[in-house]
Amino acid sequence: MPRIKNVIVTPLAFRDPPLLNAGGLHEPWALRSVIEMVLDDGTIGLSETYGDDPTVNLLTECGHALAGIDVFDINAMQARVRETLARLSPPTTDGSPRTALVTMLPRVFGALEVAAFDAMGHVVKRPVYDLLGGACRRDVPFSAYLFYKFAGHKDFDDGWNDPWGNVQTPEEMVREAREMTDRYGFGSLKLKAGVFDPALEVETSKALHAAFPHMPLRIDPNAAWTVETTLKLLPQLEGILEYLEDPTPTISGMAAVQNKTKLPLATNMCTVAFEHMPETIAKGAVKVILADHHFWGGLRATVELAAMCRTWDIGLSMHSNSHLGISLTAMAHLAAATPNLSYACDTHYPWANDDVIEGGLIQFHNGCVRVEDKPGFGLTLDRAALARMHENWKRCGLRKRDDITEMRKYWPDWNPKRPRW
Amino acid sequence: MPRIKNVIVTPLAFRDPPLLNAGGLHEPWALRSVIEMVLDDGTIGLSETYGDDPTVNLLTECGHALAGIDVFDINAMQARVRETLARLSPPTTDGSPRTALVTMLPRVFGALEVAAFDAMGHVVKRPVYDLLGGACRRDVPFSAYLFYKFAGHKDFDDGWNDPWGNVQTPEEMVREAREMTDRYGFGSLKLKAGVFDPALEVETSKALHAAFPHMPLRIDPNAAWTVETTLKLLPQLEGILEYLEDPTPTISGMAAVQNKTKLPLATNMCTVAFEHMPETIAKGAVKVILADHHFWGGLRATVELAAMCRTWDIGLSMHSNSHLGISLTAMAHLAAATPNLSYACDTHYPWANDDVIEGGLIQFHNGCVRVEDKPGFGLTLDRAALARMHENWKRCGLRKRDDITEMRKYWPDWNPKRPRW
Repeated sequence: MPRIKNVIVTPLAFRDPPLLNAGGLHEPWALRSVIEMVLDDGTIGLSETYGDDPTVNLLTECGHALAGIDVFDINAMQARVRETLARLSPPTTDGSPRTALVTMLPRVFGALEVAAFDAMGHVVKRPVYDLLGGACRRDVPFSAYLFYKFAGHKDFDDGWNDPWGNVQTPEEMVREAREMTDRYGFGSLKLKAGVFDPALEVETSKALHAAFPHMPLRIDPNAAWTVETTLKLLPQLEGILEYLEDPTPTISGMAAVQNKTKLPLATNMCTVAFEHMPETIAKGAVKVILADHHFWGGLRATVELAAMCRTWDIGLSMHSNSHLGISLTAMAHLAAATPNLSYACDTHYPWANDDVIEGGLIQFHNGCVRVEDKPGFGLTLDRAALARMHENWKRCGLRKRDDITEMRKYWPDWNPKRPRW
Repeated sequence: MPRIKNVIVTPLAFRDPPLLNAGGLHEPWALRSVIEMVLDDGTIGLSETYGDDPTVNLLTECGHALAGIDVFDINAMQARVRETLARLSPPTTDGSPRTALVTMLPRVFGALEVAAFDAMGHVVKRPVYDLLGGACRRDVPFSAYLFYKFAGHKDFDDGWNDPWGNVQTPEEMVREAREMTDRYGFGSLKLKAGVFDPALEVETSKALHAAFPHMPLRIDPNAAWTVETTLKLLPQLEGILEYLEDPTPTISGMAAVQNKTKLPLATNMCTVAFEHMPETIAKGAVKVILADHHFWGGLRATVELAAMCRTWDIGLSMHSNSHLGISLTAMAHLAAATPNLSYACDTHYPWANDDVIEGGLIQFHNGCVRVEDKPGFGLTLDRAALARMHENWKRCGLRKRDDITEMRKYWPDWNPKRPRW
């Protein structure tokens, strides 16, 4: 009956290219944290999540609080995290739920739960996908996540330049898509939109569809468009997209669009927690939800979300932020065990150029990550890499993601207003 | 990596008292089946479900089809059962889903999945509740399931008479409740109604409430009342019931009542599968769902149902049919691991007087069943008892439950019409 002895949270940073999005520009460093859940028999369970200071601090606090809990007792861990966050979070004056409980509970608990699943897998010598019901697929497909980007970061030079160059025109984006699909074998495309005038982004979408007519294509304007703009653009998009992700903000805004088109709308912005499901479903706001175990509350919570999507006939895809191989592997195990996770998953992984696991960067085969029949996630920490990337974190000085300030280095008047168009 | 070698399904019968309900009268024998899932390493996983011929036959066919599947691969088992049922079930002529897939898939798969969980628990030496997320409670409360009844079965005498006697008046029901709560320590009451004129049943409810003012009381007319009758009775029930279960048929009928009262309505009749959830929720038809892993599709499916109830703020209780100790234990493990299964569960178990497990009848302590920290469900088949009860099954000749014919032995003109009042 192995119990949790301690939980070690290590923040780290890795180089990130200057990727453009509706929220600004990726900084030279992406932040992440690695969680090691150590059991009293020496077993270590791994997890990876956000690396901003508030998350790291709450993870550390809540990780301490888990000492002594049986690693199989996910329900006790959740209760303990809830108590700990309630203690750390000041009560609201208007009686509304404490912010930490609403937004941080699923994030913090989810990260710890993933580590517990890896540890359980090691204890019982079964892959994590088996603890989630078994692998419906061993090769989990991912999509090519295409970004508009600059050639290099401003006021930053450590000798590393990403090989992708400047990508702002339709032609450059087609070149990026060609390189990425050639290199990784991806069978579907996702364009991060919401950066430029919608006319250019529609033109880019059309160019991608023309160059890859048989590849499913999604675009994600990240809520940069108004309902009106989205409705106006629909006729140009309906024939070429697999789904349209978060064109416009709020559940009501998405519903106003979805109820006027057969093109499925997808979201990882307006419906990001179980408490958003009733309104989402009542309004018929989306036809696809992009699950993300990092903010929905872990692997089991995402399995439960999948059951809801199956019941209400909502498609299920998977969202990603900048991440490393532990998250990629957890995503792959989860997707493998979820019958109705039927779309290729998103991943930022091709944009990373370092990793904390033995063997280095995980390889894609035909655009897929293979889940291995090994205990847990089948991963081992590369401690030298962990130390190196923790040094990055200390050195880079970033403590939370700030795409706005980074963007203003190029365009000083840039305004993060959304919707913008 | 233990795989399924074979699945043995044994139908059995045990003596059942003459319990009255809206569908007629319990026959002298209740049918049940015991499922043994045998793995190639000799591990045996146990489960229990319905014992009618169609279920036993489909369970046997589908059990055979599982040979070779890894016991952890619940998803593969479900796919295999689906294929097998599709093969066995004639296609419909109007394009509607095949009946076996709609109603029998969750029943047949669910029974096999429960056996797989017990087997997995033995393989990894953990109780089943740990494979479902950990026990939030070790003592699972059940309610006293009160029935109107006759003193004995007509045209049937094998020397055994249940000790409960004739129960048709409010006074007799209070006596039954007193005996049952004294004997088992139950802390809540459930009256099976829908048998007599509603005026008598309301009088019975009031007598129970007066005799046990601090005990939560529910009544279950089993859809024997019209919407109009229910609305008329509400003022007499609102002050004394914890919830009112299935007063009237259909989701629409329940919604018509629920939208006129704060008294929670509960159901195990109009919402009995995931495909009923969208309408149930859209109409606000009930405030409590009585889960039953035997027909919702097993333990994981019920955990998923619980997540939906949590998300839409619907209470969760647990339904039972006549059953034995394997089902009782599976129900207890499931309830233990489900944080929001917050009502005392229903159980017919006090009406059984034999069991197939070593140690005989499971004991209630203060109305609770304790889940034990032993591998799987912690149960061992008593093979002599299994043989004895299988002999009962051969001897009794019953192959499906028929409460109507049994009722007509007493009241020849009895009509199973529902709603009746």
